[in-house]
Parts: sequence; structure tokens; C-alpha cells
Amino acid sequence: MSPAHPHEFIPPGSRFHALPSPFPMKRGGALHGARVAYETWGTLNAARDNAVLIVTGLSPDAHAASNADDPAPGWWEPMLGPGRPIDSDRWFVVCVNSLGSCKGSTGPASIDPATGESYRLSFPELSIEDIADAAAAVVRGLGIERLACAVGNSMGGMTALALLQRHPGIARAHVNISGSARALPFSIAVRSLQREAIRLDPNWNDGDYDDATYPESGMRIARKLGVITYRSALEWDGRFGRVRLDESAADDEDPFGLEFQVESYLEGHARRFVRRYDPNCYLYLSRSMDWFDLAEHAGGDVLAGLASIRVERALAIGASTDILFPVQQQQEVAEGLARGGAQAEFVGMDSPQGHDAFLVDFERFGPAVRDFLDRLG
Amino acid sequence: MSPAHPHEFIPPGSRFHALPSPFPMKRGGALHGARVAYETWGTLNAARDNAVLIVTGLSPDAHAASNADDPAPGWWEPMLGPGRPIDSDRWFVVCVNSLGSCKGSTGPASIDPATGESYRLSFPELSIEDIADAAAAVVRGLGIERLACAVGNSMGGMTALALLQRHPGIARAHVNISGSARALPFSIAVRSLQREAIRLDPNWNDGDYDDATYPESGMRIARKLGVITYRSALEWDGRFGRVRLDESAADDEDPFGLEFQVESYLEGHARRFVRRYDPNCYLYLSRSMDWFDLAEHAGGDVLAGLASIRVERALAIGASTDILFPVQQQQEVAEGLARGGAQAEFVGMDSPQGHDAFLVDFERFGPAVRDFLDRLG
Repeated sequence: MSPAHPHEFIPPGSRFHALPSPFPMKRGGALHGARVAYETWGTLNAARDNAVLIVTGLSPDAHAASNADDPAPGWWEPMLGPGRPIDSDRWFVVCVNSLGSCKGSTGPASIDPATGESYRLSFPELSIEDIADAAAAVVRGLGIERLACAVGNSMGGMTALALLQRHPGIARAHVNISGSARALPFSIAVRSLQREAIRLDPNWNDGDYDDATYPESGMRIARKLGVITYRSALEWDGRFGRVRLDESAADDEDPFGLEFQVESYLEGHARRFVRRYDPNCYLYLSRSMDWFDLAEHAGGDVLAGLASIRVERALAIGASTDILFPVQQQQEVAEGLARGGAQAEFVGMDSPQGHDAFLVDFERFGPAVRDFLDRLG
Repeated sequence: MSPAHPHEFIPPGSRFHALPSPFPMKRGGALHGARVAYETWGTLNAARDNAVLIVTGLSPDAHAASNADDPAPGWWEPMLGPGRPIDSDRWFVVCVNSLGSCKGSTGPASIDPATGESYRLSFPELSIEDIADAAAAVVRGLGIERLACAVGNSMGGMTALALLQRHPGIARAHVNISGSARALPFSIAVRSLQREAIRLDPNWNDGDYDDATYPESGMRIARKLGVITYRSALEWDGRFGRVRLDESAADDEDPFGLEFQVESYLEGHARRFVRRYDPNCYLYLSRSMDWFDLAEHAGGDVLAGLASIRVERALAIGASTDILFPVQQQQEVAEGLARGGAQAEFVGMDSPQGHDAFLVDFERFGPAVRDFLDRLG
């Protein structure tokens, strides 16, 4: 196994699945000796029909919740585990780290075995479909013919749809949470600007940075813009209003420094992210979302693209305050899958937390997911 | 008159009003030898009671429409002129360039007479109230005791409210377009991030840039983020969808270059703005909006702050798709002014163009403004 590049951040409980080598990429090129990081919860039953796959948003790793290999709380802790909405007493749950990420799966921050150096921008163009194919390889590698359910959040909602379309029969059911069947211009504009902020940082240096010369400013802007679009004005009005920072927290020396609580909140998010996510991986995964369009092979008709998917049951849910993956897109997913013959449900939540609601509003999202999974035969 | 600094962009038809010297600033300090640029349309009648004041958003100059001094179309051309909604056959219209701007009024890009150099960051802290006081000085200087109406768009909606509160009786009526009585956290977060993008650009250099070493990257990010928040996802879905650029317009050499039409649209906006607006002026005006809170002297109760204003009639209008100055804020303006005794109307427009609707959706905004002004006695 190649040593971890300094910009890879691999959870201690990670397991790894070696991808076929070469692993062909949708837009050209291939990976050699690539791997996918994943974690599991629960036990695969003898019939091998109780598996639930989770594919994630841009930044999460495979450590969705605490487990035997890593007792630390995961990014979806209240949703996954014994007795929780995704109940590991019943389900064998697999969470896959996206191909192209820096959290254990092969990506631009990984070592290219051909050169012994990080791929950086020599990594082939990455698409959502590649991430889906890599996840499918993990599923197959675990001896699972058919998933009971494929669950995808945010970008993972795209990945799950690509998985279902490219691997017919791989799942009986699908849960799409705050996802979409294609990127629309507002989201493209936001992501394009995030990428531009990184690329304009002189320290990005066409992807050839190191810890000493690091595109910190670009990553700060990208992350803060992300957090602004992940939440909602409504939530922030109630949470921050016009409350100012304590005198001690404000920097009187800086004439344009932090003054309001909402600015300090963004600052905290940026500080926790900037050095914990590889900038090149960010660029690759961000762009893969812009490219994704399930209507690509359906004459531009997204409902027809969705209707080409065969799945028995589906649930599409999201938050009415989401500006990045608007709730109409989850409605569209349910409608399209229903046209394809699925028994499909759509639930729009009144969560104030915007796109991030599924990561925090467990009171609404927990019961919806639990109820759907409980009803799976 | 001091020579124009290279980063001032002064419309050729500008007239200038010299402010009292010293001109005290709300947050401390004073300006010496400062001036305000303005333009006019129509004729002040003998009773001097037909004057309409326009105060603007962050970036516009005083050239709202073509006039005798400058036949070029202005930024609000279809709204202002003979027979137009703000009818210069009836009204004597004055549009004022905001204090702190780089479009003719004194601001950070102007020459400080005390040093012979640009103020840059030595310009005193600028508040919306200062901009309002400077506009009031122009009104008085033109021999106008009482305006028939004070019209404010966007940031100008804040300026107009500050004007009415600080100069009781200065206007009989008020039109507030896509404005607000105070800044809320989503807008503060967006503007804070725009300012941070400029400040993080090494070429900003604590405000000490020139044409050769100019914070172009920071201004690009700030402008594109602005344009993203000025429009709406709904409009862009219909206008751009997922349409890609022609091969010839895309840069194949740049792996993360422009690909979608929406990206090219943002790029065009950035190119037209980056070198045509002074970065320090941008920082000062942007921050003045974050600070603005009409509830400041009303125990934090924004409706009480509005109710302290005495005006006979008021119209508050905006677009339901505005995420920067949400339409609830215009509704709040109407409600608060009504509490203060005004005959106040609120009209929420179904314009798809978001915050920018008043600059483009003349079919909706024109008749609303015309109708209100026509009914003024």
C-alpha cells in the first residue's frame, strides 16, 4: 500500500478495496492500482440481501458513525448504528469514500504508482459516474449481488443515481437525500467561483503546492462560500441576528476584521477545513458535480433519464430552504423514478438549515429514513 | 477642484456640491473639502415642491438616465425622463452619487487635501448615515426645503431611510425599492466574504495598490459573488440551463476553465467591473451596509425604528426571488412606516431576476413607481 500523502486524511478504521487495474475513467484515461476506502456496520446475512450502501457529499470520509474499528463519532452518527434510523442490527451498512477524495480513496492527492509522486493535476478527469463505478466495485467485492438500498446525500445523491443507472439491478431501493439528477446554473456558478478562488490563489501554483506554500486564502474563500450556500438566511436570522462579537474576540487592529457573530461562525468553519481537505481533490470533486447530468443519454430530458432507472422503491427528501440542491430537484427525482416504475415518495422538509439539514435536523430526517427502511420487505 | 484620482470614474455630466467643511462623520472624524456628485432632470418649480431624490446602490453613479449634460443612457434609463415612470416633465429629479463612492463624490479613492495623496484607508469610517447626510446637503444646497419623494434602491433604500430619520420633514413621500431597514446575517456573510476576497489578495496591500499592482483577483471574486446573489436560481435555470460555451470560447488549455454559459456570464460581469470600481471604495461602502440598523436607536426594535420616521406616503417594493434584500424586508419597511402614521403600501413582485429586478424588470417596477408618483398630490 502506498504511503499516505501529507494531504490525505484517512480515518483510522478505514478498510480498502483494490479497484481492478486498469480502472477505466468515463472521460478518458484509467487508474492503475487504485483503491477505495470504506467502513461497515452490522453483519451481512446469509442471503446477502440486507446491505445498505451510503455514498456521500464532497467532503465527508467513510466514517459515517462509530463502529468497532473506530469508536469516534462519525459525521452521521445519530443516523447510523444499532437501533438508529439506519439500523445496523438489521442492515449491513457500507459507507464508501468517494473516488477522487483525499480521505482514503485514490484521488489527486494520492501517489501515482507510475511516478512515485502525487497525481495532482495529472489525475484523469473525474466524473460522478467514475465515483459510482468505484462504489459498485466495493459492493461487488463484498460479495453483494444486490443492495437492499442505495442511500446518497448531496453529491452522493448524484452518485447513487449514476450507480443505479450504470449498474441495473444493483439495488432494490434508493434513498436520495438533498441530491439531484443534474447540476443547475446557480449551483454551477457557486462551485465555479469556489474553484476560481482556489485557482487564483498564487500558492495553488497549478496544483503544485506543499504545506509551506499552500493555497490557504483560496480554500478559505471556497469554504466560506460553501457554508453560506449550505445554510439558509432564515436559520441565520434566528441564530445570529445582528449580534456582535465580544470586544475580546474582535481584532481592533484590523479595520475590516470580524465584527458580527455570523462572520466568526464562517471563520471557524474555514479554519477547520482549509488544511484538512486537499485543494486539488476539492477541485476535481467540485467539477464532477457540474458535469453530472442524468439526462445526458436521454436527449436532455431529465425525467426520461430518471425513468430509465429500475428500482422497486424510492424516497427522495430534502429541505425547502436548500438553495444549492433545491427541493424541486428531489421532487423531480421521485417523479422520474416513479415514471420508471418505482414506488417513489417525495418528502420536502420544513427544516430551516438549508442544504445541511440532513446533517443536523435529525428530528425530521431520522424518522423519514427509518420509516422508509422499516417498510422495505 | 482636486484632480481625479486614476481610480475615480466620474460621468461627464456630473455636477458637484461642496459639503460643509469640516463635514462630521457619524463614527468619528470629519472630511475637509469634500464634495458630492449629482445630476438632475427636469425643472424645479416656483414652489420648489416637485423635487424627487434618488439615492443608489453600491456601484451606480449619479448618471441614472440621459440628460442635457450627458446624452449617454444611464443605469436606470427606462425609469427616468420625460413621460417615463419618474417623469421629468413633472418632477425635478436629483440623483446623488453616494459619499464614499469613486464615481465623483469624495471617497477613499479621492485626494485628501491635507496630504495631496489618496485617502485610501485613512478615509474615516463610513456609515449609511453619512451618505444620507451628504445627500441631504445636496438637497438643501439646491434650495429644496422638502422633497416630494425620496427614492432609494438597494443600499439606497437604507440611505433613504437614514435620510428620513435624521432629517425629519425632508420628504413628503418615500419609495423603497429592494431595500431594507437593517442588514441581516446572510447578507452580512456575503458582503464580509466579498471584502475578505479583496483583502486576501496580496495586491490589495492594505489598500496601497496601483494600476500595475492591483487586487484584480479579489475584485473578480467579489464581483462574481455579488452577481450570484443579485440574481436568482429560477432566472438562471431558464436563461442558461446547462448550455455549454462554443468550443471556440472555451479554453482547452485550462483544465478548470470556463465551460458553461453561466460561467461566461459571470466572467463578463467581472471583466466589466474589476477595473472600473475602486477596491477601497468597495470595502467602505460594503461595510457601511453591514453596520446599518434603523433599530439602533429604538432598543433593537426595527419596526419601532421605522415608526419613528414621519412621512405622509410610502411605497416599499421588491422581488420575491431576492436573496440579498429579501422581500420580507420591504414588507417590514411598509409595516413600520405605517406604524409611524404613513399611508404605506407594500408590493412584492414575482420578478424572477432577484435583487437586480429593479434594474431590468421595468414592466413590473415601472408601473408600480409611476402609479405611486402619479397619486402624489
